[in-house]
Amino acid sequence: MNITLKQAQTVIEKAMAKALEIDAKMNISVVDAGANQVAFARMDGAWLGSADIALKKARTARFFDMPSGEIGKLSQPGEPLFNIEHSNGGLISFPGGIPISGANGAIIGAIGVSGSSVENDHTVAQAGMEAI
Amino acid sequence: MNITLKQAQTVIEKAMAKALEIDAKMNISVVDAGANQVAFARMDGAWLGSADIALKKARTARFFDMPSGEIGKLSQPGEPLFNIEHSNGGLISFPGGIPISGANGAIIGAIGVSGSSVENDHTVAQAGMEAI
Amino acid sequence: MNITLKQAQTVIEKAMAKALEIDAKMNISVVDAGANQVAFARMDGAWLGSADIALKKARTARFFDMPSGEIGKLSQPGEPLFNIEHSNGGLISFPGGIPISGANGAIIGAIGVSGSSVENDHTVAQAGMEAI
Amino acid sequence: MNITLKQAQTVIEKAMAKALEIDAKMNISVVDAGANQVAFARMDGAWLGSADIALKKARTARFFDMPSGEIGKLSQPGEPLFNIEHSNGGLISFPGGIPISGANGAIIGAIGVSGSSVENDHTVAQAGMEAI
Repeated sequence: MNITLKQAQTVIEKAMAKALEIDAKMNISVVDAGANQVAFARMDGAWLGSADIALKKARTARFFDMPSGEIGKLSQPGEPLFNIEHSNGGLISFPGGIPISGANGAIIGAIGVSGSSVENDHTVAQAGMEAI
Repeated sequence: MNITLKQAQTVIEKAMAKALEIDAKMNISVVDAGANQVAFARMDGAWLGSADIALKKARTARFFDMPSGEIGKLSQPGEPLFNIEHSNGGLISFPGGIPISGANGAIIGAIGVSGSSVENDHTVAQAGMEAI
Repeated sequence: MNITLKQAQTVIEKAMAKALEIDAKMNISVVDAGANQVAFARMDGAWLGSADIALKKARTARFFDMPSGEIGKLSQPGEPLFNIEHSNGGLISFPGGIPISGANGAIIGAIGVSGSSVENDHTVAQAGMEAI
Repeated sequence: MNITLKQAQTVIEKAMAKALEIDAKMNISVVDAGANQVAFARMDGAWLGSADIALKKARTARFFDMPSGEIGKLSQPGEPLFNIEHSNGGLISFPGGIPISGANGAIIGAIGVSGSSVENDHTVAQAGMEAI
């Protein structure tokens, strides 16, 4: 099963509501089960460089079916996945990417958020993910 | 002046309405005056490979401030711009990309549509562009 | 609002004056508000490899609206943005990139300098930025 | 021998004067004998997509020590160099790129111009080249 555009747009809408609540300007990307982008929005005044990061966070979360920040713990110097970011055309391994599960618990996509602190990015991604 | 997210989302909404009317499944991308993506939507069941094409059509239209298909007329074998598609990380030079102008006539962004015949792609892009 | 070519050339001229003053050979790039290059100069004898670095520093500074070196503090191992350099086709996150603001305080572009120590690169970028 | 920055800036200045004379907005790139960019300028309002094309024309002219348009004659379908544009990270093989020779006749660099018709691009490149 795959996330629908309608679901992806709801995810973005909820994420944007949370971003406004915490006064952050975000880039928000939603990918499907195949890690292909379904929907994207850059809020007015959000960092230009965060568009690619939002997409890469979403893809990273779906590539490994875990929050992007979990990969980052393992990709530090001396850790098992050091510099895994070189794969797949570039991963982003800090927080802000979260897988999205469907009704039956299977993963149907992922959200990636970038534009503020990684804590804020994660908070906004969480709010979007919970819309499903 | 730059297209806002709200304007970009309206462009996508109008484009999708036209796509549904002509029974086509589209990827729709909107870029700003700097050719950076502002909003994107892939309709359910639309071709996966058309996401990148939609973005490249939008960028091509803004790169040269004309519909992407106009570039394609000039890039044929024997024509003045043969193989221009090798520039800018890849152009798409067939119809489906159209610049978007603001209130004062200045270009504020562009829309790119991909997922059906190039005629349909252009029709849907036109409908989106006219929303502004 | 966007930096003009005349402004960009003044930025480069002032940066070069500072580079001569401190006896450094620099590559200097200026991008506009959309992170697209407006003007570039490589001083005679400056490192060839620094041309791309100067451009990427300027783009990094505009992508996140802060000096490139600020990103670098956050991208170290164990820090929140570790390996962010893999995004946007390659960032450069050490000093030498600085945003440029216009009369009303809004960011209109950025300068990136590379060719000497990062301290010198930053000093020269600062001198260029202050021309506006 | 290699083109100097001062020479490259003179080339751009003369090219820009010609561009203003024929009322065209150009992107102008100058590369050295090693095909590395020395100086670049994008005139206000010039096409964004022409920056990369100007650089690629200059590089193409120096890569093969002939005007970029000469390559284009040979890269047509059925001709000996069909699709040579796939090499070197992307060539541009229509007019607008011209080698620049020094006092002793040896090639010291090249100019690439993009932003108007290929005839205008070539005319402006010629004016720049003749500055040396």
